[in-house]
Amino acid sequence: MTGVTASDGPGASARGDGATRRRGRPRRTESGGTRDRILDAAREEFSSRGYEKTTVRGIARSAGVDSALVHHYFGTKEQVFEAAVEVAFAPAFTARDKVLEGPLDEVGERMTRMIIGLWESPVTRAPLLAIVRSAVNNETAAGVFRRLIAGQLLRRIAGRLDLPDAELRAELAAAQLVGIAMVRYVIKVEPLASADAEQIIRRVAPVVQGHLTGR
Amino acid sequence: MTGVTASDGPGASARGDGATRRRGRPRRTESGGTRDRILDAAREEFSSRGYEKTTVRGIARSAGVDSALVHHYFGTKEQVFEAAVEVAFAPAFTARDKVLEGPLDEVGERMTRMIIGLWESPVTRAPLLAIVRSAVNNETAAGVFRRLIAGQLLRRIAGRLDLPDAELRAELAAAQLVGIAMVRYVIKVEPLASADAEQIIRRVAPVVQGHLTGR
Repeated sequence: MTGVTASDGPGASARGDGATRRRGRPRRTESGGTRDRILDAAREEFSSRGYEKTTVRGIARSAGVDSALVHHYFGTKEQVFEAAVEVAFAPAFTARDKVLEGPLDEVGERMTRMIIGLWESPVTRAPLLAIVRSAVNNETAAGVFRRLIAGQLLRRIAGRLDLPDAELRAELAAAQLVGIAMVRYVIKVEPLASADAEQIIRRVAPVVQGHLTGR
Repeated sequence: MTGVTASDGPGASARGDGATRRRGRPRRTESGGTRDRILDAAREEFSSRGYEKTTVRGIARSAGVDSALVHHYFGTKEQVFEAAVEVAFAPAFTARDKVLEGPLDEVGERMTRMIIGLWESPVTRAPLLAIVRSAVNNETAAGVFRRLIAGQLLRRIAGRLDLPDAELRAELAAAQLVGIAMVRYVIKVEPLASADAEQIIRRVAPVVQGHLTGR
């Protein structure tokens, strides 16, 4: 039953999307407990140490299993990282589906609210910060981040725009929001760091909308 | 004569701006050679290792001097970092003065061209990337970056706007450009990573202008 519950959870679509990469490996339903324990340990290790300093051996130790089992379930360190990032991004993927629904002339506000919302919540901010740190420091981690952001988020938003330069538009919109996250939550420059979230959304949503559907 | 030439160089204004912090320490003109050698070694060490892994001892070794001399000229590791970052930012400070001059209704384009220009040039991109990495990873390095970005760049641009929320406006504009830098040059998401710089400027300059002087 654990498997059923889990595949109804917010991470399900993310894991489903990435399933092709894990052909031939045991499915979540077969031994969800161990797999989940490894994944929790991996998220914890990558969050606190960053990509470079995390080892498969350390993840295995923290999960109380043998390293071989980590490799068996996930493959390489890069693949464990990708699985851990997918779980951390699960709330974003759920939120993304809400961004894609609804009228196109408000997609900018929905996208802005989604990203600001993920960074405002301490629960999602910590893993996001860990992913950004890893991606900035390490080319492999940047690659994972890039595939996920481009494939799962930007390409889908671009798909709704029906414009020839839709992907570039989606990325320029994302760049505005990535920059807000960097200045407000990572580098913490005032007055943006302490500004009211609604004030920021009010100013930024029209800009994001402009990138997506403007002239 | 070295000292005179150096204080006419692009780093002069940056060092002049920060001079109050180095009261009582030997001036550049007194022993510019050693000080410059230490600063070059510091930039190299911080660039290749990042803030956390760099040590004053390592900088001293690389400059061929005693650690005490590094402390004598600059103070703590944080202060050496600040001096090194100021030198790396010198081209930005020179460019900033050009951004501040000229008509206000084109300040968005000048600011966009300045930031894209700094990231497009391999000479300035490498130290910028090193600073971003250090700032994302380390709270002390983030503080140095914050003081410099806010004090030297954003507050000056805000000063030209003559609007009550000028600082927030300058930061939202900067956030758009920081985001472009992250997506294009650090994480390298396509198609933005390979897009023509002029195409990006054409799309982004009006947005930056809007943040700075719009409704």
